[in-house]
Amino acid sequence: MEKIHIGLIGFGTVGKGIAQTLLSQKERLIKRCGVTFVLSRVADINLDSLPAEFDNVVFSQNADDIFNDPQIDIVVELIGGIEPAKSFLLTAISKGKHVVTANKALLSNHGKEIFTAAAEANVEVGFEASVGGGIPVIKALKEGLVANMILSIRGIMNGTANYILTQMTDHGYAFEEVLKDAQEKGFAEADPTYDVEGIDTAHKLAILMTLAYGKNVHVDDVAVEGISKIHPIDIEFAREFGCRIKLLAISHNHDDHMEARVHPTMVPESHMLANIHGPFNAIEFTGDTVGDVLLYGQGAGMMPTGSAVAADVIDIGRNMIAGAVNRVSSLSYLPEHIGEPRITPMGELRCPYYFRITVVDKPGVLAQITSIFAKHQISIKSMIQKGVTKDKDVFVVLRSHMANESEVQEAITEIDALEVCTDATVTIRVLIQEQNGV
Amino acid sequence: MEKIHIGLIGFGTVGKGIAQTLLSQKERLIKRCGVTFVLSRVADINLDSLPAEFDNVVFSQNADDIFNDPQIDIVVELIGGIEPAKSFLLTAISKGKHVVTANKALLSNHGKEIFTAAAEANVEVGFEASVGGGIPVIKALKEGLVANMILSIRGIMNGTANYILTQMTDHGYAFEEVLKDAQEKGFAEADPTYDVEGIDTAHKLAILMTLAYGKNVHVDDVAVEGISKIHPIDIEFAREFGCRIKLLAISHNHDDHMEARVHPTMVPESHMLANIHGPFNAIEFTGDTVGDVLLYGQGAGMMPTGSAVAADVIDIGRNMIAGAVNRVSSLSYLPEHIGEPRITPMGELRCPYYFRITVVDKPGVLAQITSIFAKHQISIKSMIQKGVTKDKDVFVVLRSHMANESEVQEAITEIDALEVCTDATVTIRVLIQEQNGV
Repeated sequence: MEKIHIGLIGFGTVGKGIAQTLLSQKERLIKRCGVTFVLSRVADINLDSLPAEFDNVVFSQNADDIFNDPQIDIVVELIGGIEPAKSFLLTAISKGKHVVTANKALLSNHGKEIFTAAAEANVEVGFEASVGGGIPVIKALKEGLVANMILSIRGIMNGTANYILTQMTDHGYAFEEVLKDAQEKGFAEADPTYDVEGIDTAHKLAILMTLAYGKNVHVDDVAVEGISKIHPIDIEFAREFGCRIKLLAISHNHDDHMEARVHPTMVPESHMLANIHGPFNAIEFTGDTVGDVLLYGQGAGMMPTGSAVAADVIDIGRNMIAGAVNRVSSLSYLPEHIGEPRITPMGELRCPYYFRITVVDKPGVLAQITSIFAKHQISIKSMIQKGVTKDKDVFVVLRSHMANESEVQEAITEIDALEVCTDATVTIRVLIQEQNGV
Repeated sequence: MEKIHIGLIGFGTVGKGIAQTLLSQKERLIKRCGVTFVLSRVADINLDSLPAEFDNVVFSQNADDIFNDPQIDIVVELIGGIEPAKSFLLTAISKGKHVVTANKALLSNHGKEIFTAAAEANVEVGFEASVGGGIPVIKALKEGLVANMILSIRGIMNGTANYILTQMTDHGYAFEEVLKDAQEKGFAEADPTYDVEGIDTAHKLAILMTLAYGKNVHVDDVAVEGISKIHPIDIEFAREFGCRIKLLAISHNHDDHMEARVHPTMVPESHMLANIHGPFNAIEFTGDTVGDVLLYGQGAGMMPTGSAVAADVIDIGRNMIAGAVNRVSSLSYLPEHIGEPRITPMGELRCPYYFRITVVDKPGVLAQITSIFAKHQISIKSMIQKGVTKDKDVFVVLRSHMANESEVQEAITEIDALEVCTDATVTIRVLIQEQNGV
């Protein structure tokens, strides 16, 4: 029986998950692939040894022991962060080893360097686990939907942020309350910035855009706004408009330029993405051939992520057995056809908007506000005026038709400067309903 | 530039879809795969010629012209039905050509013969389009979720049936009304039996089970019940219980035996499958590693199906280029490891049930009914008594806890034989909520 030898760097939660998966699926994989996938080595600087169930695995605190073992075919990097993960991947590649990683921060910042090195060394880079946990979303883009020009990507890609928004929506809790509770329960990190400020979602969107469009999209190309400023009152107003607020990653492909944005979004309740609850992820693609396809599942966690890492290991193993390394290009387009993206500047964005404006309740206020919107070609679709605050102010809540982001920002600056305006206006973008959408 | 030559049998709606897809995606596929996918030949007995846009394609009314052309690498069969489709596929295979088909009836009835012939000839069989239209569900089972034992499959796999149920649910229409309307609009076939009686769904479930479990599951292994007997009143009662009625394919893997059933099912509104509307499909897998994963999209139609057929063609093309034919076994398990299934007899099924019993409104009736249920170990979870029919009868509507199908059938026979019972009892199975489910 042929064997594929795997070296694993990082034996944290996900590392344990992949190790357990390779053990538990061993017999099944023999029946499916005709080979044995063997976890041969593990390196982790923070451990002294491995649990007893892995006593066949050679342990070391030094990753070099993996790189220097000629028997190792595939190196799995699960330490996260930029360094030393980047050096580890480049070293493994330079030694002719295939690499598998779940490191979205690294790939969305330094992907070009890593994929170029891998192409030159003719090794594969697997990264299914970097987006959507166990959901086979990378595979879908590279293979299942290969006969499509991808027209748009819309998704909930961070389980922590979605869990917090779900709790706020279901129970009316404030952001800080839910975050604290989530941290106590271990659903949110001690430093939740990456999750709640949309940075993690931006990493993932950059990776999906790179694959979908064949362009080197960098995380810095993505405009990002998090959920920490979302107030329960806006969730309540959203409900009155038949919407829920979700942290979405959105990219529309306008052929010669492409949107790249992550922000809280009002999603109509009838849309699938409004109905993704708790820590789950869902990613929707619109293809010119297939229409809308949505993939849903657990976006994080020991075993779901282990499932995706193992799928990559097996995919590479199958290519090794068949003598077909790089049968599918790592980035879905051949390296020589991957270009630089032209990102739509946020100022050029057009979408519908939600506004919550806090004003003194006196005659003529609405006329002042609506005249400013009119000046900026922002056409109002509906309005609610209510909610007396402690200072006897009122909320004027409006939804616009399609409007231009620059004009919106200018209008809000003018409105907030009005004497009658007593608090900063809250602006939330509204999901564009596609004609072919659900 | 290397070329992959494709011969297409059947130029109906889906045939046109794949032909158009290969044309429209040609440049993009060169950038992704480095080869040109060329539709070289089309055969269709019902046509005299092809539309002008396909004037580079050699047309014939005789499929032999495709089989006998040594240049053809991949034969796409899109005529449907058992014969001559089966003979065509076997002939193509015998000539050493790879085959791609969307023919679920054929594969779920004669899959074993076709896959055996293909394995012997060392050619590939692509059938992504046979289940879930453009949704890459076969790819997910064979590759993306490869590191999982699949514990269950639950899905909405027939767009026509789901469209009808959605219309009935949203507007309170009767089954016959909606069906007639759907036929007039072209959403339902003139003979809708396969769609509304669950047969098409059973074909698809048999294929997914074969892949998921590595067993030769035949369509006859699947217990089938359609939606033609669903009455708007049951949809109304379902709503009162917080459920919607959906035609689901369900298979739970009990390791030494497996459920295989298609029937109308009460689905709690909070479950994703309750929120799949209109002609869309959604298929949910539970894997022992990944947990729940759901894939959603258009389950039929010219272009979505074209997307799936093209994905298969490209997948095979990529293997040809890499010299890696049958890199992934067609049925996901190696042929020598595919066994015969042990299907759970329907009588052994355990699930919760919904009952609508029509009785004369007089004292003691409920006692008679509940004593029969008690005798059969059917424990009642909740009850509604209401709805006076034209004959002054009442409906006794009950939901049970988990109960045994044989006991349920016996109980219903006894209840329907009661003198006070004035119409046949309606029984609908209720979806089991998984612990790890949504």
